[in-house]
Amino acid sequence: MQQLTQLGKNASAAKYELQKMSESSKNEVLKAAAQALVKKSSFILEENKKDIARGEEKGMHPGLIDRLRLTDERIRGMAQGLMQVADLPDPVGEVMETIERPNGLKIEKRRVPIGVIGIIYESRPNVTADAFGLCFKSGNAVILKGGSDAVCSNMAITKVIRESLKDGGITADAIQLIESTDRAVVQEFVRLKEYVDLLIPRGGAGLIKSVVENSIIPVIETGTGNCHVYVDEYADLEKAMAIIINAKTQRIGVCNACESLVIHEAVKERLLPKLAKALREYQVEIRGDESIQKVIDCIPATEEDYGMEYLDYIISMKTVPSIDKAISHINRYSTRHSEAIVTEKKENAEKFLNEVDAACVYVNASTRFTDGFEFGFGAEIGISTQKLHARGPMGLKELTSYKYAVRGDGQVRP
Amino acid sequence: MQQLTQLGKNASAAKYELQKMSESSKNEVLKAAAQALVKKSSFILEENKKDIARGEEKGMHPGLIDRLRLTDERIRGMAQGLMQVADLPDPVGEVMETIERPNGLKIEKRRVPIGVIGIIYESRPNVTADAFGLCFKSGNAVILKGGSDAVCSNMAITKVIRESLKDGGITADAIQLIESTDRAVVQEFVRLKEYVDLLIPRGGAGLIKSVVENSIIPVIETGTGNCHVYVDEYADLEKAMAIIINAKTQRIGVCNACESLVIHEAVKERLLPKLAKALREYQVEIRGDESIQKVIDCIPATEEDYGMEYLDYIISMKTVPSIDKAISHINRYSTRHSEAIVTEKKENAEKFLNEVDAACVYVNASTRFTDGFEFGFGAEIGISTQKLHARGPMGLKELTSYKYAVRGDGQVRP
Repeated sequence: MQQLTQLGKNASAAKYELQKMSESSKNEVLKAAAQALVKKSSFILEENKKDIARGEEKGMHPGLIDRLRLTDERIRGMAQGLMQVADLPDPVGEVMETIERPNGLKIEKRRVPIGVIGIIYESRPNVTADAFGLCFKSGNAVILKGGSDAVCSNMAITKVIRESLKDGGITADAIQLIESTDRAVVQEFVRLKEYVDLLIPRGGAGLIKSVVENSIIPVIETGTGNCHVYVDEYADLEKAMAIIINAKTQRIGVCNACESLVIHEAVKERLLPKLAKALREYQVEIRGDESIQKVIDCIPATEEDYGMEYLDYIISMKTVPSIDKAISHINRYSTRHSEAIVTEKKENAEKFLNEVDAACVYVNASTRFTDGFEFGFGAEIGISTQKLHARGPMGLKELTSYKYAVRGDGQVRP
Repeated sequence: MQQLTQLGKNASAAKYELQKMSESSKNEVLKAAAQALVKKSSFILEENKKDIARGEEKGMHPGLIDRLRLTDERIRGMAQGLMQVADLPDPVGEVMETIERPNGLKIEKRRVPIGVIGIIYESRPNVTADAFGLCFKSGNAVILKGGSDAVCSNMAITKVIRESLKDGGITADAIQLIESTDRAVVQEFVRLKEYVDLLIPRGGAGLIKSVVENSIIPVIETGTGNCHVYVDEYADLEKAMAIIINAKTQRIGVCNACESLVIHEAVKERLLPKLAKALREYQVEIRGDESIQKVIDCIPATEEDYGMEYLDYIISMKTVPSIDKAISHINRYSTRHSEAIVTEKKENAEKFLNEVDAACVYVNASTRFTDGFEFGFGAEIGISTQKLHARGPMGLKELTSYKYAVRGDGQVRP
């Protein structure tokens, strides 16, 4: 059986090797790993079938079975992901700042890898390759704990990548997988502080909460999004329609989908009938407050609705008499992920940008743009909803730390 | 009795007011608070006497009584601290990056306050004013939990600052103090995640460990320093002498003091006799490995010694046959605070800078320079020894987060 502390020690040793690697050698390794995934796809698919069979036996929901299933195309997708990461610029080694002190000390603030990153995730096996790619390119060793439903697939993907690392003369311990499906192993993992510098949980709110509450390792919280669109009294209602429909329906199961509409009383009569009709074409259920109910047919919204991340064809609606009330409603219920205002009034736009407390705040655009690719950062490890270290889409830079390199000539402190 | 959740709600409300304040109004408030501390110093000293009396009754160590004691001079020192913070540039609002996307979205990465910061500290009452100053200038509301030994002093300082805020028309809840001296209150505080964005423990290793292990709020670890000086085979031994003496003896109780000397075998015979003599003049006890014992009289060092932060007139010494062994020894025992090499060989200097994993890595300079003022950052809230968010001296910038403000013209995601 794997000992977690041994995995920790292996990763710690690997990190010193990884932090010394040049950008070009890291890119070669990523490309080789991508090729290996495609070359060994029949092995990976065989192993994946075991997970699928177990899932079907257990009566797993067809949607979850689909998330679990690998195909040639999906494996090519993983390989392409690694190739894309190879194409991203390496953040490590960047000189972020130089300071020369009156005593002659030369201080250089230098970007360095974080060290060892732990990723705890649920069923999608592609995360295994994606997380490795981003951690590796940023010079970090990664320890993965995937969902037990996908354990055979994750073991297969990890095995293929580890072999390709070995073939390239690189430490295979750049990627390690916790193979145990015992739930207690997660509780042990989140206490592996001596070896792990950062934990990133990826998955549902329950998983994230459990990691945050039990971990003694620093955690970055990702991905819970109760996102609002606020239609201001000065909104262009055509833009509002397009933005709401897009943010609600373009993909419902994602963290940057709109879950709640906040609407100024002055525009509700003009917008709501048309909007309700359009939303119903997408089978979206509306839950509105009393004032909304006067204008359109809908289910009454409860207090609970305003705090819900539905991830479903449901939207809550709330009317407000002013932008101030809209902002305070949003600041109360938001998960600080992505929030949007639709307005043509510059003053209101700036007020919203300044006063709404979220990672990404939009004026006249869909919340669906909160995404590493859409921001031009390339692939992302997640979207942070906390304020420490990184906020919003987390790319390679956000997987780094820094150190101060100080050069002197014998200086001592007087 | 104060309800912690009420303090949390007050701070949350205050943060929205603080984040909107201009730099000049914040500076006025800081200056007024500084004046108020001096003006009300007799009140503060009266209250401080109660803490001193209680401490003496309990037979508290004279060193701790001294840390606890306020004087007119120390109160003036606190006031000057606030004036200095007023003079530092305000980091809030800085545009850190702008990105224009092909679809016309304009993304602005903007520096914002973190929100609500909790500080848990031990006996020194001056931290009350210092922490307020830094948090306030960076636009954050602060909730303080000081040591119970200093509770009357902390309450008095907080009261004076709150009154001066009120006089200036600013929310007094920019600073709140947890007045309870019940130990259980800290356990409750570290779970106040709904309202507190960041916790910074300041104090001994025990306090920090307890906060890290129990908090569900993100924590920044500060201040544990097992710092090494490595004297390389290519060292200038005069520089080495000066740096070791300075790093060990200039102030022994601080986190950036040197606790351990690592020395290349090739130079030990030339350096150690002279060094031992000089250290003994400062009453420094030497604990050395066998190879050290052959050259100078000393106490045998145990494995435990290499992991100790003595904060005392003691130094451990370890010989190594190569720079690689020096680096691996340091990476094994270091608390990742401050590490130094003394060498004239550029290649070894660069190797050490690259491969030693610590917040601040020095070539030919004393570890004692790890300090906000010495780095030119001004006052600091602490020295981070973790890799997330901030590393090394934490000034005003490190008390901020960022948000993405995105301006569009109706963009939706295809």
